[in-house]
Amino acid sequence: MRKVAIIGAGMTPFGEHWGQGFRDMVVEAGVKALTDAGISGDKIDAGYIGTMASGRLIGQEHIGGLLADYMGLNPIPITRVEGACASGSLALRQGFMAVASGMHDIVVVGGVEKMTDLGINTVSDILGGAGDQEWELFLGATFPAIYALMARRHMYEFGTTEEMLASVAVKNHKHGAKNKYAQFRKEITIEDVMKSKEVSAPLKMLDCSPITDGAAGVILAPMEIAESFAKKPVEIITSAQASDTIALHSRKSLTSLNATKVAAKNAYKMAGLTPKDLDVVEVHDCFTIAEIMAIEDLGLFEKGQGGPASLAGKTALGGQIPVNTSGGLKACGHPVGATGIKQAVEISWQLRGEAEGRQVKDAHIGLSHNVGGSGATAVVHIYKSD
Amino acid sequence: MRKVAIIGAGMTPFGEHWGQGFRDMVVEAGVKALTDAGISGDKIDAGYIGTMASGRLIGQEHIGGLLADYMGLNPIPITRVEGACASGSLALRQGFMAVASGMHDIVVVGGVEKMTDLGINTVSDILGGAGDQEWELFLGATFPAIYALMARRHMYEFGTTEEMLASVAVKNHKHGAKNKYAQFRKEITIEDVMKSKEVSAPLKMLDCSPITDGAAGVILAPMEIAESFAKKPVEIITSAQASDTIALHSRKSLTSLNATKVAAKNAYKMAGLTPKDLDVVEVHDCFTIAEIMAIEDLGLFEKGQGGPASLAGKTALGGQIPVNTSGGLKACGHPVGATGIKQAVEISWQLRGEAEGRQVKDAHIGLSHNVGGSGATAVVHIYKSD
Repeated sequence: MRKVAIIGAGMTPFGEHWGQGFRDMVVEAGVKALTDAGISGDKIDAGYIGTMASGRLIGQEHIGGLLADYMGLNPIPITRVEGACASGSLALRQGFMAVASGMHDIVVVGGVEKMTDLGINTVSDILGGAGDQEWELFLGATFPAIYALMARRHMYEFGTTEEMLASVAVKNHKHGAKNKYAQFRKEITIEDVMKSKEVSAPLKMLDCSPITDGAAGVILAPMEIAESFAKKPVEIITSAQASDTIALHSRKSLTSLNATKVAAKNAYKMAGLTPKDLDVVEVHDCFTIAEIMAIEDLGLFEKGQGGPASLAGKTALGGQIPVNTSGGLKACGHPVGATGIKQAVEISWQLRGEAEGRQVKDAHIGLSHNVGGSGATAVVHIYKSD
Repeated sequence: MRKVAIIGAGMTPFGEHWGQGFRDMVVEAGVKALTDAGISGDKIDAGYIGTMASGRLIGQEHIGGLLADYMGLNPIPITRVEGACASGSLALRQGFMAVASGMHDIVVVGGVEKMTDLGINTVSDILGGAGDQEWELFLGATFPAIYALMARRHMYEFGTTEEMLASVAVKNHKHGAKNKYAQFRKEITIEDVMKSKEVSAPLKMLDCSPITDGAAGVILAPMEIAESFAKKPVEIITSAQASDTIALHSRKSLTSLNATKVAAKNAYKMAGLTPKDLDVVEVHDCFTIAEIMAIEDLGLFEKGQGGPASLAGKTALGGQIPVNTSGGLKACGHPVGATGIKQAVEISWQLRGEAEGRQVKDAHIGLSHNVGGSGATAVVHIYKSD
């Protein structure tokens, strides 16, 4: 297999885009990624797009065909990939394989979701389709409830506190305030989180990622020609994906995502790296508890130590291992299909030294971690720059 | 890239399955494909599943994670791919790349759709999401109307008649009557078609493919180990995909699908073959006019000669080139995400000499052609057996 690099990256601001539709956002992100790479659309051989629920959110399926058209890329093949909130990373993984296999050379990969045009209850029901529709959602278990069960159990097993959960949101808002693409650019305090409205105990509103519109894109190329483009290439050194049961009730543990553990183990093995080698990490913090479980399952901290590590600032900029410098899903926002690609964009910027006020010093190895639903899919990518 | 073969194939009967859900159907098709290959699930390294609209049809997204669970395949990666009615072939194409690249060895690829639980108007609206939601469906252009425009223009340009259209349905019902998996196993006459209720002139009810439940699956392996399994391997010698505008109004021609022409041209080139080399073909006959355009765009007949060729029986079993021996979408049924995989299953059976009463004699080279929407995506695969 050939080595694969990201040669261009771009994204729309994440937020509530009342004046911009699904199609406009993808075109904006795609053009930014192409411009960043310094190439024109006629150099593109194929594309992948991650989007979770365009059918229910905007009545439109067949997103690959739609975007080949709106990006002006006909007649090249563009394919939609879906894996709930991991859709973006799954698209990246298909793009990676398309280039690694030699099937295609220059591949555009995007992620997009347009979510704010519908009411919160409708969107919550649609997002519930990422879990077990028949055995969870139908019975009332929306995602805040599912992650609240994990949080309660984590608190019971490891002594994790609500303040530790809150510290994740505080840190991610602090990072997001430094990111001009973030939905929320204001800092918050632990007290703000603790006093925010309860959604599903122990999770409060500020423990939850928001509903967001946005799109992001990257351009991939074989490593052997990647140096010839405008920006420093960022190599994708590994792409790993794993699955777990769709419903929480079938799992042996509520405090760990086995799909994350398997994907991470495979990714480290393929890359010949350990968690200690990582300089910067983007993880899937759809809820604050999700980030605590992620930094444990990825091996950044011992099981049960994710909460204390977060409270102690070990995952903040300047800490032991900076996590979610973009602001994460919590503060940068979570347009579900776009999130995995936004993570790749953020890691690209960090490894190129272009992350402005949130730059991690001397960052050369990065990791992104993207979860579908409550963990039935997890995807880990590891990236490297010289 | 490695050579890739189909080593197992299976499907559920297509039809109205009131007693069988989405999950049950996929498991049935998957287990049949595994059994056919003579292997157990623990040999599978990865999977792909094509489904168009599970979100709107059954409230469930994240189909990859769901099926890893229900197929008992955790923790291997399974990914959903969507491209409207071409979803199945797009999943096959991703599986092909995964094996060809060396990323995975044994890969299961499925397609599924559960459509009959909702009313026809709702399903028609959902299927409209395969076209341009904003510029076609929103204004009332459902799929029968879109294909009726193509039919009218084809009649105007080439003198194609309603009887010629009807002859496609008659031939596909004749084939479907010989297929125990087909939704409609009764023969019809040209008069039956002509007298059936008008849907969107000149298309009548019997010019249209039905609403269907069903699933199909194939098992892929590298060609170098394919001989070691239970059945004669069927090599996938090429996989080509192309795009066109999502809306009909942006195209230069209404009587040809450019995505089909580009995909076919690339497929023949990669395979080093011409249309004359084909022994058996499955094409995308969502409407009778679609089959006539397909056999022209694939180069089986001159442009404008698809209608007369169909009426003359040249595409029937025993004719010049048998098309849609399964019964096609028209008689075998069209569970949209499953159709592309059903085509691969039928071609596999034909090239293995297992197509029972509808077997094409000495069939060694086959082609499948799957279209998304009104042609914004087209996928062509060519297959070979010794």
